[in-house]
Amino acid sequence: MSDISINDPELDEPVALEQSRIDVGWLSQQLLGTWPEERLRARANSARPELWRDPALAMPEHRDRVMGQLRILVEEGAVNLAFPKRLGGGENHGGNIAAFEELVVADPSLQIKAGVQWGLFGSAVMHLGTEYHHDTFLPGIMSLEVPGVYAMTETGHGSDVASIGTTATYDQGAQEWVINTPFRGAWKDYLGNAALHGKAAVVFAQLITKNVKHGVHAFYVPIRDDEGRFLPGIGGEDDGVKGGLNGIDNGRLHFTEVRVPRRNLLNRYGDVAEDGTYTSPIKSPGRRFFTMLGTLVQGRVSLDGASVAASKIALKIAVTYANERRQFAGGDGEETVLLDYGMHQKRLIPRLATTYALSFAHENLLKQFHGVFSGELDTPENREDLETLAAALKPLSTWHGINTLQEAREACGGAGFLAENRITQLRHDLDIYTTFEGDNHVLLQLVGKRLLSDYAEQFKGADRGEVTRIIAEQTAERVFSGSGLRGIGQIVIDRGSRARSVGWLRQPATQHELLTARVETLVSEVAAKLRNAKKLSKPEAAALFNRNQPTLIEAARAHGQLLQWEAFTDAISGMPEGKTRQVLTWLRDLFGLGLIEENLAWYLMSGRLSVPRAQAVSAYRERLIARLRPHAADLVDAFGYGPEHIRASIASGAERERQDEARAYMRAQRESGNAPIEEKAMQAEEKLKQQKAGANA
Amino acid sequence: MSDISINDPELDEPVALEQSRIDVGWLSQQLLGTWPEERLRARANSARPELWRDPALAMPEHRDRVMGQLRILVEEGAVNLAFPKRLGGGENHGGNIAAFEELVVADPSLQIKAGVQWGLFGSAVMHLGTEYHHDTFLPGIMSLEVPGVYAMTETGHGSDVASIGTTATYDQGAQEWVINTPFRGAWKDYLGNAALHGKAAVVFAQLITKNVKHGVHAFYVPIRDDEGRFLPGIGGEDDGVKGGLNGIDNGRLHFTEVRVPRRNLLNRYGDVAEDGTYTSPIKSPGRRFFTMLGTLVQGRVSLDGASVAASKIALKIAVTYANERRQFAGGDGEETVLLDYGMHQKRLIPRLATTYALSFAHENLLKQFHGVFSGELDTPENREDLETLAAALKPLSTWHGINTLQEAREACGGAGFLAENRITQLRHDLDIYTTFEGDNHVLLQLVGKRLLSDYAEQFKGADRGEVTRIIAEQTAERVFSGSGLRGIGQIVIDRGSRARSVGWLRQPATQHELLTARVETLVSEVAAKLRNAKKLSKPEAAALFNRNQPTLIEAARAHGQLLQWEAFTDAISGMPEGKTRQVLTWLRDLFGLGLIEENLAWYLMSGRLSVPRAQAVSAYRERLIARLRPHAADLVDAFGYGPEHIRASIASGAERERQDEARAYMRAQRESGNAPIEEKAMQAEEKLKQQKAGANA
Repeated sequence: MSDISINDPELDEPVALEQSRIDVGWLSQQLLGTWPEERLRARANSARPELWRDPALAMPEHRDRVMGQLRILVEEGAVNLAFPKRLGGGENHGGNIAAFEELVVADPSLQIKAGVQWGLFGSAVMHLGTEYHHDTFLPGIMSLEVPGVYAMTETGHGSDVASIGTTATYDQGAQEWVINTPFRGAWKDYLGNAALHGKAAVVFAQLITKNVKHGVHAFYVPIRDDEGRFLPGIGGEDDGVKGGLNGIDNGRLHFTEVRVPRRNLLNRYGDVAEDGTYTSPIKSPGRRFFTMLGTLVQGRVSLDGASVAASKIALKIAVTYANERRQFAGGDGEETVLLDYGMHQKRLIPRLATTYALSFAHENLLKQFHGVFSGELDTPENREDLETLAAALKPLSTWHGINTLQEAREACGGAGFLAENRITQLRHDLDIYTTFEGDNHVLLQLVGKRLLSDYAEQFKGADRGEVTRIIAEQTAERVFSGSGLRGIGQIVIDRGSRARSVGWLRQPATQHELLTARVETLVSEVAAKLRNAKKLSKPEAAALFNRNQPTLIEAARAHGQLLQWEAFTDAISGMPEGKTRQVLTWLRDLFGLGLIEENLAWYLMSGRLSVPRAQAVSAYRERLIARLRPHAADLVDAFGYGPEHIRASIASGAERERQDEARAYMRAQRESGNAPIEEKAMQAEEKLKQQKAGANA
Repeated sequence: MSDISINDPELDEPVALEQSRIDVGWLSQQLLGTWPEERLRARANSARPELWRDPALAMPEHRDRVMGQLRILVEEGAVNLAFPKRLGGGENHGGNIAAFEELVVADPSLQIKAGVQWGLFGSAVMHLGTEYHHDTFLPGIMSLEVPGVYAMTETGHGSDVASIGTTATYDQGAQEWVINTPFRGAWKDYLGNAALHGKAAVVFAQLITKNVKHGVHAFYVPIRDDEGRFLPGIGGEDDGVKGGLNGIDNGRLHFTEVRVPRRNLLNRYGDVAEDGTYTSPIKSPGRRFFTMLGTLVQGRVSLDGASVAASKIALKIAVTYANERRQFAGGDGEETVLLDYGMHQKRLIPRLATTYALSFAHENLLKQFHGVFSGELDTPENREDLETLAAALKPLSTWHGINTLQEAREACGGAGFLAENRITQLRHDLDIYTTFEGDNHVLLQLVGKRLLSDYAEQFKGADRGEVTRIIAEQTAERVFSGSGLRGIGQIVIDRGSRARSVGWLRQPATQHELLTARVETLVSEVAAKLRNAKKLSKPEAAALFNRNQPTLIEAARAHGQLLQWEAFTDAISGMPEGKTRQVLTWLRDLFGLGLIEENLAWYLMSGRLSVPRAQAVSAYRERLIARLRPHAADLVDAFGYGPEHIRASIASGAERERQDEARAYMRAQRESGNAPIEEKAMQAEEKLKQQKAGANA
């Protein structure tokens, strides 16, 4: 991986507008990734007006519309990609997700309702069930004859699925499961398709047989008859209006002695024989639980991709508008386009860099997902890595999505607030992406725990001397960072040469080392603090962990960001030399150095950056932003979304027309010779006249 | 102002749960501020169900409902506080805003539609018009007989009001104004009451008489007849659905040769005689324009207060839920309440501290507003200070509002997304507060320019030698901060004593000095960079300014934060010694040190904080958060909002009931003796049995 040289690294020179441009078509193709046909076909679907979100609809009409849209997807054959070939599916897991996440461009409610039906309800039957369930239930699910509910979350238990209250008790006499909701907190809640359309549900419940509780398992449970009435023992409520995604009928369900046949247990990872004997291919109840949940990782994968897509839409709108909208007269007397303001550049261009990073990182995630789910690379280690990767990326991309939508909204001012300009509508819908399919903080904590256990691995088999040495090195690190001694050394070396600092910062090896060091140091710090936890009482150990929770989550975030940076860097390394690669390298540097700037105090305090080098980080980023500004329009065009996907009147060229008309009017006024003159000019004229009169007097 | 001593400043000791509590009733009274009766009366109104927002309503019904709510306010006599006594008003400007901003608690659409009618349309007639206009137009405005539009913003000009395109040309023959929209960009846009309800408008237009353009003035223009049809020459459009505030009928207006009588010019700051002669008490067109706009500062004042109120609602909901909601078993086997997690504390408690700071700062703003508008303290300097203060505080509080609402939403998980829990609804409505009544970035830039001109004042009258000295000192500063030499000095002094660092950081004088230094240094840096702008060509000077725009805006932000910190500190200094003062001092320290932590790299690089002191900032903040955790519920209760204002089912005690019921069920199960046993326990039992069997064999 070579670094593109920059001809004039002196920071104080004005930046010449770039003459040559990037290859938008080629870059656009790159961004389509590994499944370009599937992605393009889904975009073509999302371009159909009947699949678009209509912001004027109230909740009931929006729900009807989206239900109808699901039927259109079925007619299009757009929903079967992941299902078994023998049932008419495509067994194409990566392509399926690539296509699925593009539905967000039509209407996020459509995306998520499709996700409930085929990604959660259908996938649960496919991955947790066996041949009988596939043959019996999948055809109706695929055809939408049976709209279904994925009944996992309860009012009282969201993130802690293992503690749900619903029970499924085996009745050996009847050879049936008896499903029960023992208290209000155990009502199933926030379930798509539950309020209206669902006819059946995959219900997660504590499996009890022979008076032993075998933990959470999934059961196929019919819930409504053909007239839409609840079946006996089943009740529920509508969740009502939500902050977004109002095209989905979320609701609550509860069960009172609801009976289903023994075979309705989705029994791939745990089965009960007629006599009530429980068997499972996985002995450890804990590992079994996580294996079952792990089969549903695709939800997280697809939210990651959908958030990247929404960020692209937001930036295409905001950058287009900022390139056309003018406000306040500039140095040449003409009004200045917003994107020529330093602040406006600083708001949008770094987010553009992050969006590219996240786009490349998502593609890696998608490939890893496909490798595991296609069976090509399906090992326990790869599954675990996939789950960790998804848990690291989904929080960062969903937060980036709503943050970018919000900044785009504000950057477009009052116009950004109108539904006709899309942004607020996407913002409302994407909000929940940060807490569903795994609360972002809980996911990052999972990643943090994985980092801790990987860290502990290095001590395995090490003798006492080695452990002492490793810990001593960490202590030295602490001593150095505490005293700032390392910093002093760097200050002496670096004094006076900012250009040399920039050269150093631009090197990918430098950025990589700095980003990696932060992950490693944070993890080892937490590990050191938790080292003696085993000696403490349980409450003391829990309190100790809780105090260190923010740092552990910060370590996980830094880890995810490092992965994004690596994905961006890998993507560049495969590109031919030329303008496009150069611009993307600037964009990667802006992203990488942005991560370092966000944590500049940490780098300074740990002695990893001297003051001159730290100052060079910000100065060089400013320089990069100015460099990238002329390419901003090309970079959002390369996302490949057309007007039928963008659908924002301020990004349609209407603003340019208005500005041209206004400027033409002003020019004609000036040239007419009889336009009203400004009071100020008149005052100056009068003053001159009076002076002349005074001189003549 | 004395500092509360803390008994055990050692950071690594566990914090004992505080035994004594703050005086919630007394603090609540303090927070009601200078106009407690007006505020409480408005809260009593906002508690009436007929004034509440109903999230299920589609836009047309929501608009109708809010229009009806305005009539209720008229019946209540709740809208006349600011108007002249001789017309039935109260001439109580501070009390009026205090009451007005509490309407946000009922429905932000109600607040803003009331603001359009009485705060903008009515205020423009009052402040820009004279006796004739007051007598003729105010009664109909006050009684809502004439719902009105404040027609300032145009599609093409938002922040740059001086450049609007609409013209009002004096026709001496007819003694009328002819109002015209010359091109599409000059359509008035985003105007509340324009789409449906408005019967008249205050239209801002370029006043032209005798072929001289005298700049922007306001005209009273009837726009609809009694049947709601546009009058001749007037046209418009509905802005349609928005990202929030859908109870308001925003729309567009345009004018084709619309004629109004000469006297319909609101002529306080500029008048035209029958013969077309223009006169004004303010000679400079620029100063006249800013004086006219300055009379409308109350919009910014009230958005500042409303955002603080919304932040209080958000935190009351999120903290209450976090104190009741349990998830994941803790050290004692019971599930842990969310607010006992370190990360959850870090998300909510610093925002609580900021909300207190903003609440006290808003009260200062309100008092200053009242002083100027009541005439008691009405000097040009005070007006200018008021405008700068409003421009500094409104951006920070409106951003804090939406940020706090978003964090509260996520902290409440899926429940936070339901409309029944309020947060998303407030979030949608408050979004636009960040860009209306002055785009936040544009306002901060205004503040920055004021700081720059204050900075330049110090050079006025200074001889060349003094100027050289002042500039030389700044250069020395730059040299020091560049090389980190100051830092080295501090490192040597501070090494090893974090406790001493904490003692130093806790001193208000330290915090004040650090916060002030940042403002001063940023301003002087920008000033130094712009020093030679006058020697440059206009385009070069504009480019130079644009490059420095982000730093200038950052200086303005730092200035606003300093004012918030000072307001918080002043509020504490007036409190009697005791627990409440102690807790609020912790909260102030958390706020102040939070501002410093956000810019820790800057403090390190400028040599103002050594590494040990910088490390102590974060360590001490962690400690403060843990200290404040037991007081979080009291601190949100002191905001003084009851269930009729909060209206979130998750903050109603329902969650505690659910948790209690679930725990009682689990306890009963355990105690019954015949509950199913866990598979894990059974496995352990079986293993034991096998071992015994092996031993017996």
